[in-house]
Amino acid sequence: MTEPGYIFSEDFSVRDYECDIQGIVNNANYQHYLEHARHEFLISRGVSFARLHEEGTDLIVTRVEIDYKYPLRSGDKFVVSLHIRRQGNVRLVFVQDIFRKPDRKHIVHAEVTGIVTKKGKPVSPVHVAEKLGLEQEINRNRLK
Amino acid sequence: MTEPGYIFSEDFSVRDYECDIQGIVNNANYQHYLEHARHEFLISRGVSFARLHEEGTDLIVTRVEIDYKYPLRSGDKFVVSLHIRRQGNVRLVFVQDIFRKPDRKHIVHAEVTGIVTKKGKPVSPVHVAEKLGLEQEINRNRLK
Amino acid sequence: MTEPGYIFSEDFSVRDYECDIQGIVNNANYQHYLEHARHEFLISRGVSFARLHEEGTDLIVTRVEIDYKYPLRSGDKFVVSLHIRRQGNVRLVFVQDIFRKPDRKHIVHAEVTGIVTKKGKPVSPVHVAEKLGLEQEINRNRLK
Amino acid sequence: MTEPGYIFSEDFSVRDYECDIQGIVNNANYQHYLEHARHEFLISRGVSFARLHEEGTDLIVTRVEIDYKYPLRSGDKFVVSLHIRRQGNVRLVFVQDIFRKPDRKHIVHAEVTGIVTKKGKPVSPVHVAEKLGLEQEINRNRLK
Repeated sequence: MTEPGYIFSEDFSVRDYECDIQGIVNNANYQHYLEHARHEFLISRGVSFARLHEEGTDLIVTRVEIDYKYPLRSGDKFVVSLHIRRQGNVRLVFVQDIFRKPDRKHIVHAEVTGIVTKKGKPVSPVHVAEKLGLEQEINRNRLK
Repeated sequence: MTEPGYIFSEDFSVRDYECDIQGIVNNANYQHYLEHARHEFLISRGVSFARLHEEGTDLIVTRVEIDYKYPLRSGDKFVVSLHIRRQGNVRLVFVQDIFRKPDRKHIVHAEVTGIVTKKGKPVSPVHVAEKLGLEQEINRNRLK
Repeated sequence: MTEPGYIFSEDFSVRDYECDIQGIVNNANYQHYLEHARHEFLISRGVSFARLHEEGTDLIVTRVEIDYKYPLRSGDKFVVSLHIRRQGNVRLVFVQDIFRKPDRKHIVHAEVTGIVTKKGKPVSPVHVAEKLGLEQEINRNRLK
Repeated sequence: MTEPGYIFSEDFSVRDYECDIQGIVNNANYQHYLEHARHEFLISRGVSFARLHEEGTDLIVTRVEIDYKYPLRSGDKFVVSLHIRRQGNVRLVFVQDIFRKPDRKHIVHAEVTGIVTKKGKPVSPVHVAEKLGLEQEINRNRLK
């Protein structure tokens, strides 16, 4: 279920192979969770990352900022929630949070900046945003 | 070979399983490269991440910022270089760059903030820094 | 839902980072799916792989045989089903199949052989099998 | 350096993110090592897995058998060695061994069966074998 303020949420369980010697989820795996949640969000809006790529359109991550607040462990369940805003003319920012379930412990806060490219050239994200039904959303939250 | 300004460098080759549908290295894998370079740096100074953990001391990443400037592809070779600075009383920041070889194309710039914990409690990083022969280094570059 | 002949099934979705340049799930990732299904099976019987490890008991895979029949692609959903048999005195074999959903296309057949160790020494799997409620099961299917 | 009986060897170091809660390399990662060694072997013969794919030719793994003899741990160095034989008309088998360094402890024995496909249809592996300079080799070791 999607929390207020977020436009999409995806549930996960920690898989043991994602945990490292310290018994906690390895840092890079949170990026996998964040990415999978973004791609499932696209699918929920009828857009497939793989099909976009076949059509020559790619969503490229240009920057990630991840704050690791508390580690996930073997057996934990969690939710990845997201919303999105536009930054300047070409960038989209996915704001993503990971919460442990059921206690809502805040695990990760991340901001993932991306651009849309067509045959390798950056293009306006408006066309993709329309496909996602997000045109109003990304303009309302636009940062210059 | 370590470049001027960096205190350690580690060479890598892209492995095909690290590449995704777009034919480029998946974003999360750069964190693996960055982590492996940090751990090899520790080993080069006689400190093992795994042994530290067995002794109850952990190096915990609390924040990463990664700028993705240009993608690596199947067959690429690259180097991960790093230096380190202290931030405030308890944080260490690893500043890490990835360059493609041999053309020195700048692939990734990352800043990885960590703390040292002993039995789960944050402690001063000075003891670990001494083990690494970095006491002067981290104080010279200290940010308040 | 568990199919007839299997004692446990776990549902999955392909995550795009698991796909490679060929646009299909990388071979090693099927081992991750198989392992996660085994660990979820343990949890469904009240046994945690991580907790067993903390108590000095490990389940060690000694051999895998995997037949790759058809590839999974981005967007595919699938189920991993398993049953278990005993082999000789010390070995357990997890027989595992992966089927695409909803068309039941057979993707992978795997046989994963493991042993139980206590503080690093192989021990009879009977104690773990009892915890799993599988004592009759593993003896009925026993292979010499 | 390549051992007698093998036609190619590739050196590796364990990366800590490849180790799991048990402090040993997770089983699926050995498949990554085996795959990377095969692809580096192709490159050593002037053949790129990624370029083959772009040309419509794929090397598809249809079966793996892996015997896990002894685990690798954090800090271990190791070598993956391979040779190749033909099986029937369409299959190639990569026989691969992993040895810890420098003590040559035998870690893994694997047999990885593959086929060559062109636009998705299985074809004779002879054309690829010629590119690899292996035509005599694969026929000498041919199994019916």
